[in-house]
Amino acid sequence: MVGYPTKKTPQKNGPVQSTSKRGMSLEDDLNKTNAYYLELDRANVHKKPTPIMIATVSYPSRSQAKITEAYFKVPSTTDYNGVYRCKAVDYEAKETQSKTSFALAYLHEHQIAHMRSVLRHGALTFMIIRFTSLDETYFVPADRLLAFIDTTTRRSIPILWIRENGMRIPWRLTPPIDYLTCVDAYYFKGEMLND
Amino acid sequence: MVGYPTKKTPQKNGPVQSTSKRGMSLEDDLNKTNAYYLELDRANVHKKPTPIMIATVSYPSRSQAKITEAYFKVPSTTDYNGVYRCKAVDYEAKETQSKTSFALAYLHEHQIAHMRSVLRHGALTFMIIRFTSLDETYFVPADRLLAFIDTTTRRSIPILWIRENGMRIPWRLTPPIDYLTCVDAYYFKGEMLND
Repeated sequence: MVGYPTKKTPQKNGPVQSTSKRGMSLEDDLNKTNAYYLELDRANVHKKPTPIMIATVSYPSRSQAKITEAYFKVPSTTDYNGVYRCKAVDYEAKETQSKTSFALAYLHEHQIAHMRSVLRHGALTFMIIRFTSLDETYFVPADRLLAFIDTTTRRSIPILWIRENGMRIPWRLTPPIDYLTCVDAYYFKGEMLND
Repeated sequence: MVGYPTKKTPQKNGPVQSTSKRGMSLEDDLNKTNAYYLELDRANVHKKPTPIMIATVSYPSRSQAKITEAYFKVPSTTDYNGVYRCKAVDYEAKETQSKTSFALAYLHEHQIAHMRSVLRHGALTFMIIRFTSLDETYFVPADRLLAFIDTTTRRSIPILWIRENGMRIPWRLTPPIDYLTCVDAYYFKGEMLND
């Protein structure tokens, strides 16, 4: 179900989260999109579970294990991966409230290293960046993103660069973020699907 | 560090766990193997984090979040995935203490469905099965495994079938389980690496 537009007080200086008029986070939209792709048998892509370090587990009953102490770990890879047209798909998705740029601080150093690695091994690697205040979502190929990072001293990527080097993903009802259209256009150059 | 052989009392009827003379679980061996592949830039494969449903999080300090109530979720995909020679890699690894067969009950229904799906999309899909009591580890291609499941009423796979249809992975020091050799032989039919 797509949330019906409701009045919300936008958080101006809060943590990065969706203030989209639709009220759905990028993660929700991507989960719906991937579920849609799976149902149509177009691709098999999943969000990786959040990595957690478990400290204590108790067993209140024989059949159930209850974790009573655990901590979040910093992810060492990107959040989403799977398979599409025989290729490995690997991407990271981030939201920002900025209207002018995407701060590189949102990307961990080892996530960048991971993107370099999977790109080298031939995965379809990219980022999905949403500017929540503008309600604009972009597909940014990793080869261009990494080239930008390697040749700049900037701490953020200007939205103008993203508009020039990425592709805007129009919001749709089903699927909300049809990023495979961008994958087809960028990596397969409009080749016909042969399956 | 590989554990030095030590005297251990093998658990005869306990839960599925390694009784390998080396004292290392299949998961440990695979983590070492994947770390080795990553270091040599041969492949990028990771174990997915265990899926957990978080119920309560407390904030003992501003910088730290502590999970105080959470539960294990049943995984909906296989445990390991990544990229190798441009292709998506997707596999499940299981240990059994049986000396004669692998019980299909160890595989969840949706893990089987997941294997079918990624196989259809062209991923290199397989299982790694270790018979801990025999200290034998096998690579079993998913196409053969699924064909077996589809044509049998058995609840387990006899080890004889696995020996005929899979490939034994010899244990080595580095990497402990060199499964990519099997992947090369089965999926690339000895094609030369062109990178």
